Amino acid sequence: MDPSQVKIPPMKDLTVDNITENVIRINSLCEDARMKYVLERLVTHLHDFVRETRLSSDEWMTGLRFLTEVGQICTDVRQEFILLSDVLGLSILVDSIDHPKPAGSTDGTVLGPFHTHDAEEMRAGDAMSHDPSGEPLLVVCSLRDMHGRPIDNVKIDIWETDSSGHYDVQYPGREGPDGRCIMRSDRDGIFWFKAITPVPYPIPHDGPVGKLLKKLHRHPYRPSHMHFMFEKEGYDHLITALYLRNDPYETSDAVFGVKDSLTVDIGKAGPDIAQKYSVPEGHALLTYDFVLVSDAETSELRAKNSKIALDKLGRKVQIVNGLPVPELD
Amino acid sequence: MDPSQVKIPPMKDLTVDNITENVIRINSLCEDARMKYVLERLVTHLHDFVRETRLSSDEWMTGLRFLTEVGQICTDVRQEFILLSDVLGLSILVDSIDHPKPAGSTDGTVLGPFHTHDAEEMRAGDAMSHDPSGEPLLVVCSLRDMHGRPIDNVKIDIWETDSSGHYDVQYPGREGPDGRCIMRSDRDGIFWFKAITPVPYPIPHDGPVGKLLKKLHRHPYRPSHMHFMFEKEGYDHLITALYLRNDPYETSDAVFGVKDSLTVDIGKAGPDIAQKYSVPEGHALLTYDFVLVSDAETSELRAKNSKIALDKLGRKVQIVNGLPVPELD
Repeated sequence: MDPSQVKIPPMKDLTVDNITENVIRINSLCEDARMKYVLERLVTHLHDFVRETRLSSDEWMTGLRFLTEVGQICTDVRQEFILLSDVLGLSILVDSIDHPKPAGSTDGTVLGPFHTHDAEEMRAGDAMSHDPSGEPLLVVCSLRDMHGRPIDNVKIDIWETDSSGHYDVQYPGREGPDGRCIMRSDRDGIFWFKAITPVPYPIPHDGPVGKLLKKLHRHPYRPSHMHFMFEKEGYDHLITALYLRNDPYETSDAVFGVKDSLTVDIGKAGPDIAQKYSVPEGHALLTYDFVLVSDAETSELRAKNSKIALDKLGRKVQIVNGLPVPELD
Repeated sequence: MDPSQVKIPPMKDLTVDNITENVIRINSLCEDARMKYVLERLVTHLHDFVRETRLSSDEWMTGLRFLTEVGQICTDVRQEFILLSDVLGLSILVDSIDHPKPAGSTDGTVLGPFHTHDAEEMRAGDAMSHDPSGEPLLVVCSLRDMHGRPIDNVKIDIWETDSSGHYDVQYPGREGPDGRCIMRSDRDGIFWFKAITPVPYPIPHDGPVGKLLKKLHRHPYRPSHMHFMFEKEGYDHLITALYLRNDPYETSDAVFGVKDSLTVDIGKAGPDIAQKYSVPEGHALLTYDFVLVSDAETSELRAKNSKIALDKLGRKVQIVNGLPVPELD
């Protein structure tokens, strides 16, 4: 690049006190207002973090080495940066902001690092888990909108661990998906399938994130749960999970995902259910009524929340493409 | 880990408003006061960044993918996270805080990602660059303490690019170091060697950091410079560089490293110098007088600066092992 094309004021002799404004100024050559705003806040917070901690060169290098290790352990089936985001509470925070839920709708929670894109479509009643050691579980759910109307043909991704607490992708010899499936809701908004009762399990803790947790004396466990992801045009993408009540880790989830509204009891199939779904009486049963929010309702609530939160912070913003950027003077 | 050993208050139903305090609380199980403080500030700033930008799930995923790519491109001879830290102005900020310089001493600047640990020890007058296309340069420097006394036997790491603007480690077939050496100052504090005149060059921009710069319409160039690193027990580790005056990128360095006090003119060897160092008259010449600070002086200044800065921010701290931690109530 021709240096005569550099359209920023000269920068030299940058100090603890003027480096931040200069980095923001040079980044502001970018014409994408949203990216500019995100980077301005990122640079400000990273610099303030360094200034407030008086971060040492050794600590800085330790941090960069840690991030390098986090990146290097990632593979197609292991996403250690999601894990890091999860254990720092960032994932649940982003989900809460981007997918706000009006009262009466189903809460969202963390995606986690184990969703894949190769789950098979299954039909109502199919078994998604083939682990013979798992405790068989019948799952019967309904899906409605905020007005109580059934929603049909929603694509539902479901995934859970096997009875030893491992997802299929955690086995080196994995040849295909297991413990996961894609279902579609029927015209009554119902979907049902056979699974196994979820068990608590540690998030992968043989890598840098596990070492960090150990150093912090934090356990790596997640309480028993089953993941669900709902997708249909016109509805806000819902990533959620159901948690088992009274799990030993119910109130100390390593990734902060548990919500009371998503906590369920495992029941027993009575005679009617047993007959209708062809399981023995007394068979373990999980039921849940999910409520999806429309895109329009979510957008409105998201924009309203953004405006309120940023007003409170004294930041004047406008919402462009659904996301805040600073108001022009 | 036995869940009954979890010694934190129950956490559930975490929201935009209470997630931060809960993450800080669970991290506070760690008994290392400094690590606790660093993480508390990190979590606070990361969460505030997300809250202020209302970061979307898509942006979050884009960010995690970017960090993953940064980690994955790193090798023994390429450190993309240092590069990222450099272009965000973090590296120069950390150096300024950790290695404060009293008036009269030599300023520090960014280390950059190209220092290696395999440079050969050379003797006074040796040639550190073997690039036949480089413009030969005689470098004659002195090294003194804050009282003007010469410092002998300092280990000095020196490195620069070849005449095409590439460090040795950027060549795939690299068999050993070139354009780098280790010298020792003599009893008069003098060290001298033969090098080539530095040229401007782009930082590696074929990776994720280069793509980021491009998106921001920032050029990846660094002005012509030569790196120096000084090490001797009792003296604060000095990482610095000398920059050539009137370089086209002098005031827009991609990594914010240029300082006026480190900017030099290339001179010409007069008859005395030419004879003394066995070069032709008129040979390109770079001279500089470096001034090192003792560890004790640096520690004192660092602690004083920390105290002042944190008082200004309203944070009550005590200095433990040279670094601030919150004062106990």
